[in-house]
Amino acid sequence: MNDNWNNKRLTRQIEFLVEVDKLKSVTRRTFLIDKSRNENVAEHSWHISLMALLMKEHADNLDMDLYRVIRMLLLHDLVEIDAGDTFAYDAEGYLDKEERENAAAQRLFGILPDDQRNEWMALWREFEDGITYESRYAAAIDRLHPVIHNYYTGGESWQKNRIFRSQVMKRMAPIETVSETLWTFTLELLQRAVDKGILLDDTGDEED
Amino acid sequence: MNDNWNNKRLTRQIEFLVEVDKLKSVTRRTFLIDKSRNENVAEHSWHISLMALLMKEHADNLDMDLYRVIRMLLLHDLVEIDAGDTFAYDAEGYLDKEERENAAAQRLFGILPDDQRNEWMALWREFEDGITYESRYAAAIDRLHPVIHNYYTGGESWQKNRIFRSQVMKRMAPIETVSETLWTFTLELLQRAVDKGILLDDTGDEED
Repeated sequence: MNDNWNNKRLTRQIEFLVEVDKLKSVTRRTFLIDKSRNENVAEHSWHISLMALLMKEHADNLDMDLYRVIRMLLLHDLVEIDAGDTFAYDAEGYLDKEERENAAAQRLFGILPDDQRNEWMALWREFEDGITYESRYAAAIDRLHPVIHNYYTGGESWQKNRIFRSQVMKRMAPIETVSETLWTFTLELLQRAVDKGILLDDTGDEED
Repeated sequence: MNDNWNNKRLTRQIEFLVEVDKLKSVTRRTFLIDKSRNENVAEHSWHISLMALLMKEHADNLDMDLYRVIRMLLLHDLVEIDAGDTFAYDAEGYLDKEERENAAAQRLFGILPDDQRNEWMALWREFEDGITYESRYAAAIDRLHPVIHNYYTGGESWQKNRIFRSQVMKRMAPIETVSETLWTFTLELLQRAVDKGILLDDTGDEED
């Protein structure tokens, strides 16, 4: 598939660019808001990058490095080319998720020139570790995004997979650590989803 | 479709986020590299944002503000939600492209809170004007991307639309103004495309 171009570094970068085109064919459980089809991971990566820009004023730490956030969001899901998209509520899939994604990161970023491989791998690792404020803000956006899709599709993916509010709440935890405003919004949205009957409630009086 | 959330600014931002989901359903003439389907504009926006990061070392001006480049690339095609994707070699479509896209920008960015609308509109306008180095680097990446797709799909879109080398060359002009390395690569790629018979040549001895 790949040619050897006269510029050696460029040859590896072009090979990488061509390889990551495959992310457009990795599908998520989330639906487009018009419900016409499932979302793919590449367009999801675009949407959350834009969302991170859109929501920046709501970050508790306004000094964050948003450029680093965007870079993390653009590349953090590349590993799904090999590892596939692990559904957020698939406990079994999560058992070997880390192992599969580590191998994928080694292979994919390994296509790049060495210095660039190290730089991109470090950004991916920072996102996965979730220690820096930037990586937690990025994760918060990544997790809030499908909840908004679910809400505006009438709970399409929640219902198909029988997801309960407590599961979503647990998954949304990073949001509380980065933004009071977005956390308040998340709680409001989940309450409205339960009230509309599009999200199963296991936190009220009726169950457990 | 939209709810009124307790936070007024967030209500407009969420409405915008939901609205721009439509970009995932706007298709381009370009094919995915595996030729399985046409590319959509949202995933294209992701791919070129990543490409701008990937290729930054090849910029003639290494002091450029790459964060601004990425923001431009993430949002510059949003107007295609209303205006559609105008094929690069569609002379007729270009006649009213500016008018259609201006109206689209007014409507779409108008959903945002006023200060944010002004900020995003300014970035879109900067890209369109193509005066700053950042906007020209962004445009260069945006134009080189489909050429790479064409090359690696065996000229799928060039052939379907009977595109000649001189047309592609003209379209690639911004690349020469921002990167000697990428321009050399572009010329090399087009020559190889002609040699492989996947791009029609109108610059050699045979024609004109």
